[in-house]
Amino acid sequence: MNDKTPPDLTGIKFDADGLVPAIAQDHKDGTVLMMAYMNKESLGLTLESGRAVYWSRSRKKLWRKGEESGNVQLVKALYQDCDGDTLVIKVEQIGDAACHTGHRSCFYRERDGAGWKVISRPLFDPSAVYKK
Amino acid sequence: MNDKTPPDLTGIKFDADGLVPAIAQDHKDGTVLMMAYMNKESLGLTLESGRAVYWSRSRKKLWRKGEESGNVQLVKALYQDCDGDTLVIKVEQIGDAACHTGHRSCFYRERDGAGWKVISRPLFDPSAVYKK
Repeated sequence: MNDKTPPDLTGIKFDADGLVPAIAQDHKDGTVLMMAYMNKESLGLTLESGRAVYWSRSRKKLWRKGEESGNVQLVKALYQDCDGDTLVIKVEQIGDAACHTGHRSCFYRERDGAGWKVISRPLFDPSAVYKK
Repeated sequence: MNDKTPPDLTGIKFDADGLVPAIAQDHKDGTVLMMAYMNKESLGLTLESGRAVYWSRSRKKLWRKGEESGNVQLVKALYQDCDGDTLVIKVEQIGDAACHTGHRSCFYRERDGAGWKVISRPLFDPSAVYKK
């Protein structure tokens, strides 16, 4: 089905588990939406398909972001850092919410004094989106 | 010297190595400047001092960001993600450049076709800043 040459990932340093952290950032306003991990295969699929594909460390399988919720991430740009061990992907987040909790960003808890405060409201109801 | 109660870090999930990744983002324009790791001590020092303190995985010691270059990071806000296993810190980057290469951001290489292109110029000369 796919006879293309796999993307050249020279320079990317995958860790001992074969993973590299990828920070997903809104391509328009720069909001950091989430951070997840990619292995060589998921990074290759991300580059080939133009949609973010991660490696789920908990489920130990490819995680085609949005496959359940429909909230896919269209890749607008990809960056590697000075050491090649971290990626930033600028994305268009379909459905606006990147987080499985329904929040736009996974980083919806801000340090407030000695504790944390929730700084946003969910954009969708997770129980309605993720069916068991 | 320090008789304060250590900061309450309940909810933060440090990994098997006792580390949590921390994404440093410019507090004004949202540029992702770098990603580094914090252990419990460095996160505590970050909260207490208002300056980013990381744990250097390569040097295996506390890394008071800017201690050599002077380019400290003043913490403006701190966020944890839905799982508590990743942090975002919004910072004011003194000296503008966060990267040891002299670039403002460590993410100065953008995917371009099958390769990578450098998208910024160094703001300082690393050899002049970091003396051996």
